[in-house]
Amino acid sequence: MRISVIGGQEADEQASRMAFEVGREIGARGHVLICGGRTGVMREACRGAKESGGITVGILPGDDLGDVNEFVDIPLPTGIGYTRNVLVARAGEAVIAIDGQLGTLSEIAFALISGRPVVGLGTWELRDGNGVEAPIERVEDAVSAVDACEAAVAAASG
Amino acid sequence: MRISVIGGQEADEQASRMAFEVGREIGARGHVLICGGRTGVMREACRGAKESGGITVGILPGDDLGDVNEFVDIPLPTGIGYTRNVLVARAGEAVIAIDGQLGTLSEIAFALISGRPVVGLGTWELRDGNGVEAPIERVEDAVSAVDACEAAVAAASG
Amino acid sequence: MRISVIGGQEADEQASRMAFEVGREIGARGHVLICGGRTGVMREACRGAKESGGITVGILPGDDLGDVNEFVDIPLPTGIGYTRNVLVARAGEAVIAIDGQLGTLSEIAFALISGRPVVGLGTWELRDGNGVEAPIERVEDAVSAVDACEAAVAAASG
Amino acid sequence: MRISVIGGQEADEQASRMAFEVGREIGARGHVLICGGRTGVMREACRGAKESGGITVGILPGDDLGDVNEFVDIPLPTGIGYTRNVLVARAGEAVIAIDGQLGTLSEIAFALISGRPVVGLGTWELRDGNGVEAPIERVEDAVSAVDACEAAVAAASG
Repeated sequence: MRISVIGGQEADEQASRMAFEVGREIGARGHVLICGGRTGVMREACRGAKESGGITVGILPGDDLGDVNEFVDIPLPTGIGYTRNVLVARAGEAVIAIDGQLGTLSEIAFALISGRPVVGLGTWELRDGNGVEAPIERVEDAVSAVDACEAAVAAASG
Repeated sequence: MRISVIGGQEADEQASRMAFEVGREIGARGHVLICGGRTGVMREACRGAKESGGITVGILPGDDLGDVNEFVDIPLPTGIGYTRNVLVARAGEAVIAIDGQLGTLSEIAFALISGRPVVGLGTWELRDGNGVEAPIERVEDAVSAVDACEAAVAAASG
Repeated sequence: MRISVIGGQEADEQASRMAFEVGREIGARGHVLICGGRTGVMREACRGAKESGGITVGILPGDDLGDVNEFVDIPLPTGIGYTRNVLVARAGEAVIAIDGQLGTLSEIAFALISGRPVVGLGTWELRDGNGVEAPIERVEDAVSAVDACEAAVAAASG
Repeated sequence: MRISVIGGQEADEQASRMAFEVGREIGARGHVLICGGRTGVMREACRGAKESGGITVGILPGDDLGDVNEFVDIPLPTGIGYTRNVLVARAGEAVIAIDGQLGTLSEIAFALISGRPVVGLGTWELRDGNGVEAPIERVEDAVSAVDACEAAVAAASG
């Protein structure tokens, strides 16, 4: 299974630790971790995945490898800037959002547009003009996050 | 000035009326209206702009004109599906969000990433993981919405 | 009708003059000129269109107006770099290619993929691995170029 | 090293065999094979890479896995249609073009724009308006193709 991990390129200590644990859990279960390939949550998630033997893919904004983190196995330079967020959101079968700023918000939106289940760890709360909340499944830890991805994908294909 | 108007391709009566009034105000002030070129808020905004003599641009998801509304002067088929939302968000110097669903959410996110001022009429409320609200300037009517766009762009360039 | 004019951002005297004449002819016939919004062939074509009262659209690589030429009426910043070439190629109902380098080559390819007729003025010659030439209609002057666009679009819709 | 293999989604016997051999050679040397993930040259190249133990990435036009071939390890649905050709061209450090139609032409163009070395096996011949040929290094067999990729990347980084 492919799981996209999204979150800020600047991450505080809590978000960094959570990202590392999520990445490690993804790798331990044999899933492929997809992310934006850069710093912060992206880097910590990749570092975690490599610690448990996982494979990591980084979809980069630039046209070269100038900003890739050292835990990305397969870097994919795009040259389309932040528009690559759309691709990060869609590339996974499920998406785990950790904390994050506007880039993460854009990725949550595109994941939901494309029907990908979104699991949230301390991330955005979104209510439309009628007060209806966007369908982010909120969890508290890394194991629950990956459990929720697996359950959602199993339910969708079942 | 170019103003992007974003909102759902399905719009209730209130959102439709608001979209029409926003479009009419944009046209009356000589601004160019940019949108996604389809139904709902997009169509009503274009209809309003044409009533007051404005120019309308529709950035379409498809590779042809199959889904363009009849009030678009300059249709731009893209063939990139919903990823064209990114382009709609960036093409304006300011963005007015009316109601809307997930597509609108993605456009708000990309407008903010790109530093475009976003003015909201009954649209999404967004709080990040620390409870900080995204910087959408909320207004109640069409005149205030276009006023807010003009003021924000003047402040940015001034 | 919308006609995309493509060609190098650096243009010699002959290509520049041809671009100007093509733009002027597009404007004189009331068509909308679409281009990449920058220098060289793009700028000269826009300048020609404005001399004859046409409307010009520039689909820009950057996220702002830093590199737009002064004859673009409606600039559309995209923030996706050269990938915007795909959009320039698709936005017109027909495409006129003048001289040009690799960017122009990419636009010709995407125009043909999307079924847009391509008219060439001193531009690329393309033969596939079986020696079959790509369907570019070659002409020698600006009037013939716009004539060919009109005829091809009429034939396609007729 | 990442090598993009591009070519037609319909391939004759010769192109298919060449694609298989190229893929097998890429896998045997421990490189990652990147392609558009579908039929024809893409499928045969992936099949070859899997026979020699390589890793394959497929960057798909659709938003789901509907058209992925069975030899792709890491499918990346994009939802941007043929515009994904730009990403296929850029994702590799070098590009091998085998035969191919208009999609392949667009990928060659974007590879060259992005400074990727392009190695050709029975593919397009491209001359600009001054008769200057585009810099495709032409080879006759799979071993030479991968040799040429390695040499070009070594030269660029050396």
